[in-house]
Amino acid sequence: MLITPRTLSGFKDYMPEEALQKENLLQTCIPIFRSFGFMPIQTPHLEYAEILSKQGSEEIQKEMYRFTDHGGREVALRFDQTVPLARFVTQHKNLGMPFKRYAIGNVFRGERAQKGRYREFTQCDFDFVGSDSVCADAEIVQVIDTCMQALDVGAFCIAFNHRKILDGIAQMVDVAQNLPAVLRAIDKLDKIGKEGVESELRNIGLSHEQIARFFDFVLLEAKGEKIGTMLADALQKADNPTFQQGVHELQQFYTLLQALGICTNRLRLAFSIARGLGYYTGIVYETTLDSHPELGSVCSGGRYDNLTQNFATEKLSGVGASIGIDRLLAALEHRPKTQNQKTLVVAMELEYLAYCAKAAATLRAKGMVVELYPDIVRLKKALQYANTRGYDRVAIVGSDEFAQQTITFKDMQSGEQHSKSIDSL
Amino acid sequence: MLITPRTLSGFKDYMPEEALQKENLLQTCIPIFRSFGFMPIQTPHLEYAEILSKQGSEEIQKEMYRFTDHGGREVALRFDQTVPLARFVTQHKNLGMPFKRYAIGNVFRGERAQKGRYREFTQCDFDFVGSDSVCADAEIVQVIDTCMQALDVGAFCIAFNHRKILDGIAQMVDVAQNLPAVLRAIDKLDKIGKEGVESELRNIGLSHEQIARFFDFVLLEAKGEKIGTMLADALQKADNPTFQQGVHELQQFYTLLQALGICTNRLRLAFSIARGLGYYTGIVYETTLDSHPELGSVCSGGRYDNLTQNFATEKLSGVGASIGIDRLLAALEHRPKTQNQKTLVVAMELEYLAYCAKAAATLRAKGMVVELYPDIVRLKKALQYANTRGYDRVAIVGSDEFAQQTITFKDMQSGEQHSKSIDSL
Repeated sequence: MLITPRTLSGFKDYMPEEALQKENLLQTCIPIFRSFGFMPIQTPHLEYAEILSKQGSEEIQKEMYRFTDHGGREVALRFDQTVPLARFVTQHKNLGMPFKRYAIGNVFRGERAQKGRYREFTQCDFDFVGSDSVCADAEIVQVIDTCMQALDVGAFCIAFNHRKILDGIAQMVDVAQNLPAVLRAIDKLDKIGKEGVESELRNIGLSHEQIARFFDFVLLEAKGEKIGTMLADALQKADNPTFQQGVHELQQFYTLLQALGICTNRLRLAFSIARGLGYYTGIVYETTLDSHPELGSVCSGGRYDNLTQNFATEKLSGVGASIGIDRLLAALEHRPKTQNQKTLVVAMELEYLAYCAKAAATLRAKGMVVELYPDIVRLKKALQYANTRGYDRVAIVGSDEFAQQTITFKDMQSGEQHSKSIDSL
Repeated sequence: MLITPRTLSGFKDYMPEEALQKENLLQTCIPIFRSFGFMPIQTPHLEYAEILSKQGSEEIQKEMYRFTDHGGREVALRFDQTVPLARFVTQHKNLGMPFKRYAIGNVFRGERAQKGRYREFTQCDFDFVGSDSVCADAEIVQVIDTCMQALDVGAFCIAFNHRKILDGIAQMVDVAQNLPAVLRAIDKLDKIGKEGVESELRNIGLSHEQIARFFDFVLLEAKGEKIGTMLADALQKADNPTFQQGVHELQQFYTLLQALGICTNRLRLAFSIARGLGYYTGIVYETTLDSHPELGSVCSGGRYDNLTQNFATEKLSGVGASIGIDRLLAALEHRPKTQNQKTLVVAMELEYLAYCAKAAATLRAKGMVVELYPDIVRLKKALQYANTRGYDRVAIVGSDEFAQQTITFKDMQSGEQHSKSIDSL
């Protein structure tokens, strides 16, 4: 009885080209993380359910893959890498602070399956634990900036804000008791526009006046060199201490970003940015691609002061970001693939195989990608295979080549052929 | 109420140094896989339980992490990457054959926890699907050989055999009906010695004579250049057609390995090698490190003719191997870590932070690993931190350095200090 081969709904196979691009993308970022002194760690995919509970939103908790293992333990697949990080830094006492780590791994959320959203997906996180310095915030943005440039995804913009700005505005507009709902509403600004947010705020119970005053602050934004002026103006405009503290920290942050040599043209300050997740408490940021605004943020993060609150009384803060691997892959999808020249070596008779294998080894030793076709087939079939696999040239060994100790190279693009002696390879 | 931070029994965290070494190890192998035309694929960690059932040993089935998901589906965590490969190649019809892929991922087995054995571990597999050519077998060994040399783990030995040799011997000794038990016994030769195997064979019911004849064949082995003679002699010695076919294929295989330039000194032919897993049907191999025989095989594989039997009527054969990442890490554990020079930059006052950040960025742009200490602390604390983290030197910016636009570098090994102007970096 045959079993129908299929993947679970919401789960996907990465096909070779896509998996290659994903691997290349990560291999571009890893040396950058390392150059800033971040070190990798790996934690299990499976944790005690208790460790992962009481964390994340109610929705995330409902979507968690939970079950009882062979030993009767309640276990669950991780839904992010931040809760395991909190567990890690409290469990291993001698890490020393600050602790900088990156982690690349898959996480699981049993969300309703929808286009482009998967129940298993890869997170690439880098975090800075145990430092309250704004320098750590700036460095995270510097790492984002460096990665985005290295990934060669075209023009991008890093937009930022401070949660205290939103807290302060909420206090000034007197909606602090409704903060979560207000944050959820403003978080949708990009999607539903000003009118949409306005209608949501009205539903929450904000008066016409409150909404006007709210928008008066929350819609403020500036790009590039105007950021400094916007911050100075904002300080004049509001006398709320929470708001002012947010502005002061943003000023330090912005000064540091400039000192780090980050091009201000790529920066945008927007008081409307909330970043959905509840745990952020400080500066937050998100990155969008000019060529693919529809993808939303491809890299976002921020500061969270309560990282380890469920595991320890001692407070440890964190600041970090996550690169959206799948969104970046979507942006890179239509890019021409630039790869090393690839050669397929084909033996026309069994007795030429060893000869071909040796030639392949010689070419490979020079750094080329060389595949040796393992079977004896008609040339037409081998050429078809080379075509499907995107090989640039085919190296053929028939009776003439074998007798004269040569190889015939056929260019798959132009169809041109030329012979080379085996010694000259 | 605080939750005790802990990992599940049998699961482990990779600490930074170990995770770094693991990452380096994989990044050494990946370009090699690619240079032979292998492409990466990734399949989900979670599959329909049905897909993974009827595969592997009874033990593996019992150890599988199975549960019911939110949608009432019976699902399971994969226990290897070979069954998902079989599912993959039958599900995606247009891959074209032969199909060469590598896959690096974690697998789960709820084994009894014991030292050095984990319930979640990483497999690094490379396989060649859809070719019956012995050239594919030889190439897999060539990839193993190339990887082992690149990993710089010292002298190693690739031992090989053919399952038909064992089938043939079993026929000649007339124990073919007991083959699985006989294979299990001979598989333990390294662990329990000849006497141990003898006693197991007696328990299975083999006569004194049968055991003597069995050993007469199964203990044959040769290293290096003597392999050719051993094969020729074996052919003379036995007239069983299965055995003879095995010898013929091994002869072709050995000729190809030589043609590929693999140093015969690293090769060993041993008729006792069975490789535990039931699914091998052709040539099998295993790799041991001369300096760490106790680790067993660090890379093994072979040919299996029935890859897709549960998913399709069309027969697809496979040949591949798996690199034992954790065993290799254990072998590398006591190696001195060779890393890029690492610098920790320390600002003695808050107003020097931007200056330091800029210096760090300059050094980093030259390819160095540079961490900027994000807080203002006493120098002693920063030096301690540098020491714990294995930094080679600390770059200090105090009032003198800031005024003179210099940096003082302190070598952590020698304690020596010298100053450099910021412009000369």
